[in-house]
Parts: sequence; C-alpha cells; structure tokens
Amino acid sequence: MLYLIGLGLGDAKDITVKGLEVIKQCSRVYLEAYTSILTVGKEALEEFYGKDLILADRETVEQEADTILKDAHLCDVAFLVVGDPFGATTHSDLILRAVKLGIPYRVIHNASILNAVGCCGLQLYNFGETVSIVFWTDTWKPESFFDKITKNRRNGMHTLCLLDIKVKEQSVENLIRGKKVYEPPRYMSVNQAAEQLLAIIRNRRLQGEEPEVTENTVCVGLARVGGADQKIASGTLWEMTSVALGDPLHSLIITGTLHPLEVDMLKLFAVDKSVFEHN
Amino acid sequence: MLYLIGLGLGDAKDITVKGLEVIKQCSRVYLEAYTSILTVGKEALEEFYGKDLILADRETVEQEADTILKDAHLCDVAFLVVGDPFGATTHSDLILRAVKLGIPYRVIHNASILNAVGCCGLQLYNFGETVSIVFWTDTWKPESFFDKITKNRRNGMHTLCLLDIKVKEQSVENLIRGKKVYEPPRYMSVNQAAEQLLAIIRNRRLQGEEPEVTENTVCVGLARVGGADQKIASGTLWEMTSVALGDPLHSLIITGTLHPLEVDMLKLFAVDKSVFEHN
Repeated sequence: MLYLIGLGLGDAKDITVKGLEVIKQCSRVYLEAYTSILTVGKEALEEFYGKDLILADRETVEQEADTILKDAHLCDVAFLVVGDPFGATTHSDLILRAVKLGIPYRVIHNASILNAVGCCGLQLYNFGETVSIVFWTDTWKPESFFDKITKNRRNGMHTLCLLDIKVKEQSVENLIRGKKVYEPPRYMSVNQAAEQLLAIIRNRRLQGEEPEVTENTVCVGLARVGGADQKIASGTLWEMTSVALGDPLHSLIITGTLHPLEVDMLKLFAVDKSVFEHN
Repeated sequence: MLYLIGLGLGDAKDITVKGLEVIKQCSRVYLEAYTSILTVGKEALEEFYGKDLILADRETVEQEADTILKDAHLCDVAFLVVGDPFGATTHSDLILRAVKLGIPYRVIHNASILNAVGCCGLQLYNFGETVSIVFWTDTWKPESFFDKITKNRRNGMHTLCLLDIKVKEQSVENLIRGKKVYEPPRYMSVNQAAEQLLAIIRNRRLQGEEPEVTENTVCVGLARVGGADQKIASGTLWEMTSVALGDPLHSLIITGTLHPLEVDMLKLFAVDKSVFEHN
C-alpha cells in the first residue's frame, strides 16, 4: 500500500494519530521536501516517528517514482507531505503511476495553508482562485498573478497568495556546466511579495491604468501558520512592505469585499487599527 | 486558554497528536455538533480521548458562549470542531468574545472538506467561491447558488458545493407551539443536490436561457471524504442523480475547465469512462 500522509503545518506533533500509526508500520518513509517546510527539520521528525526518513526532492519524485513505489504491492510505503497531500501542490502523478502498477493507495489528510489561513478571520467561502507569487529576476518579472487577484477582487473575493520557495535550485552557470551545486534555499517574505505588487501597481499607472488593487488595499500577512509562534498582521498593502513577521513560511492575502465580522477579526491583528476605522 | 481543535474528517484517530494531548489536559471539552459529523459518534470519541464531551449545538454556542468560556482564563477549555475550526463555518464569534474577556486562545488545525476534496484529483488552486446547496421546501426554492456556480465555471473554476445538514431542526408546528421537539437529522445526498440543480436548469430553459451548467457538465460526487470507506464518483450531472454513494456526508463538485492531469485522475472514479473520452 502507498500512503500519502499530510503532516500539517507546525511541528512533528501536527501529524494525525492515524498518520503516526501508519508511519510506524511502513517499510520505507519518504519526506517530500520541495513544496513546503515545517518549523522543525527532518531530524526532529525522525526522532518523533522513531523512523529514518528518505528525503524526496523534486528530482526524486519526478524521475524516480518507480523507486518510491518499489514493492509497494508487497509492503507499506509512506510519502509524507507538509500540509495536506493535495494542498499547495498535488501528487496526482505518483497516484496515477501507483494505480497503473496495481498498487493500492490511501490518503491521510491534514491541514494545509489553503484552509488554515481561515485563522485570520476571513471566511474561506469567500476566497477566489489561489495564486502563486514567484521571485522576480532581472530579466523575468511576470505579472499574471496580479490579473487574477484583480479578477477575484472585482468579484468580491479574497485571494490567497502562496509565496515562492526556491529549494535545491541551480544557478544558470552551474546548470550550464552540469554541476550539481545548489543555491541556498530562499523563501519569499510578505515584504518582498508586497514590494513586487507595488512595482506592478506603479507599472500599471505608467500605462495609464488605475488598478483595482492599490497600496491602500487591505491585506493580511501570515507567517508560520499553525506553528506555536505563528504571526498574523493585517493592514494596507503598503504596510505589508515593512511588517516584521520573522522566519518563513509566509503567505499573503489580498482581501476582496470585507464583511463586518471579518473586519472585527482583522482588527485583532491590525498593524494600525485606524486603517479599519472606516470599514 | 481556549483551544479550538479540528478533528479532521474520518474517525477518532484523525485528530492530531497535538490536539489529543491538549484534550487530555483540558478541564472541559465541548464538541460542536451542528455543522458536520464524523463517521463515528460522540461515544467513540469519548472512549478514545478518555474524556467526557459536552455537546454544543447551535443554541449552546450562540446563546451560552459565556458558559463555554467560563473560567477559561484559569483553566483550559477545548472546543472541538469536525474538520478544521475555520473550515466549513467559522467560529469568529467565540474567538472575539474570548479576546474581549481577556482569554487567550489557540487553534489546532486539521483537514477540512475544503482542502480534502483535492483527493479527487482536481487542483485546489482552480476552485472558485464555495457554495452551499440548501434543502428546498414546498415554498422556498432558492437558486442563488446556481448563479455562483455559473460564474465560477465561466471563469474556468471548479465549484465545491457543501450540501445541507439539518440537525436539531424544529417543524414549523412545534416552533409555533414552542415545543422543543426536534426532527430527525437530515443530510443532503449528491443525488438530491443533482436533482435540485437539474430542476434549476429546466427552469432556466423555460425562461429562454441556455444555462452554462447542463445535465452533461462533468461533476464529482464525494462521500465520507477522509473516512476508511470514502467514495468518489465522477461523471455528468445527470449521472449524479443516480450514483450510489451511501451514508453521509456528501459533497458535490461542479467542474470548470479541466486540465489533462485532472481528467486522468477523474477517470479513476468514472461512473462511465466514455464520458471522459472526448476530454
């Protein structure tokens, strides 16, 4: 049996009782290590589970799926994913391959950022399409996520922005030379995401547009959601460029139409309460 | 401290290790009993937790919040919610009241139907606004959710439809007489939801419209997501009127634009694979 097990968002103890029982019975346990991170490392998980974990980076999962699935019709194999197995990414490829090989699979769900963001008080019902904000480079500055945020906002919907994670990335130079040397991991902060959004707003104005989302749009910055030291800050997009949220992972919400109860909740996390006075 | 703890979606063991530890240390433990159900009852939870649970129906939470919060600045009180505390509903009222009383609170997240539906292979990214489909009565047949589904679909987005739950409802007769006699609980099935949607489609055609969602739109019916006997069925809306999914809870997804990998996953659950041949 192949088990896809969500680990939740905080630390080792955010796994479900069922998930922990399954891990203990598995012959091999893989830890997916490229779409998200917990507030604790692999060693802390290994100690808590009493099992060695095999790190599965993007290459392993894409190129060595057959290794992961080896003998899984005879023994139990677990594939651990931070959050929910179907949260920020999906593992359809692995499941489809398992089914093709006649290997049964089972999913053990957990919280993912997509539902845990409800902790800021915004109704999950009222979220539109989720977007990803990627790190800009000198030559690549995509703006397509801004149009999706605009569309959601025009429909009154909030937008959850998942912020870029660069793990095990190679520099162009090392890639060309075929050197498997990796850059240190980078996690986009709410400050960086807000700066990129403000740059897009400036661009749009230069093109004669008046964007739907501006520096005064109410946003929510979240860090380490589900962790013991989680932080939430609500305020304008402008305020999000300087708010101090600490270590990764960060997420950013651009609000749509706010309901009174949502405003009351956001006030609990306000950088500056006066922003919410007229709401 | 007030703890809001998600129980996940399946049975007693879907609670997180952290959530279980907290419950064991709490002086009072409430179980929210009106927005969702697990596949096991209160007694099974009590046995697994080793704690008595106090059922909190809608009346208790709305009218007796102060009872729930009593002495929570001196002792630990847990409020258990099926799924995630911010999943299908929100408990902002309880949190705001706690904050006002100077009672600290903490949330222990878990899977909710809003992220666990990813198990059917549809990308959670591509879901628009979530809707609720309510039981029609002889005199009240709202159609507003249909317009939201239509809007999502025009934007290429899938729609998760949460299906009505009637727990501790009074008949109009008993309500008028002030008799606290409650009707047996009712849970809307995928079949019932599909029938109501088809009735709306017929109405719209009678009014000369050609609806965006038709009897041939690809849908996904899900039952007991996260439970050991979970069922998923994909097919046309018409097929959803007769598919046998068994006991509650059910959910229904109306798809938007399908990506090839999503189609591959939906085929695993097809009522009739030929529906997906042209996709």
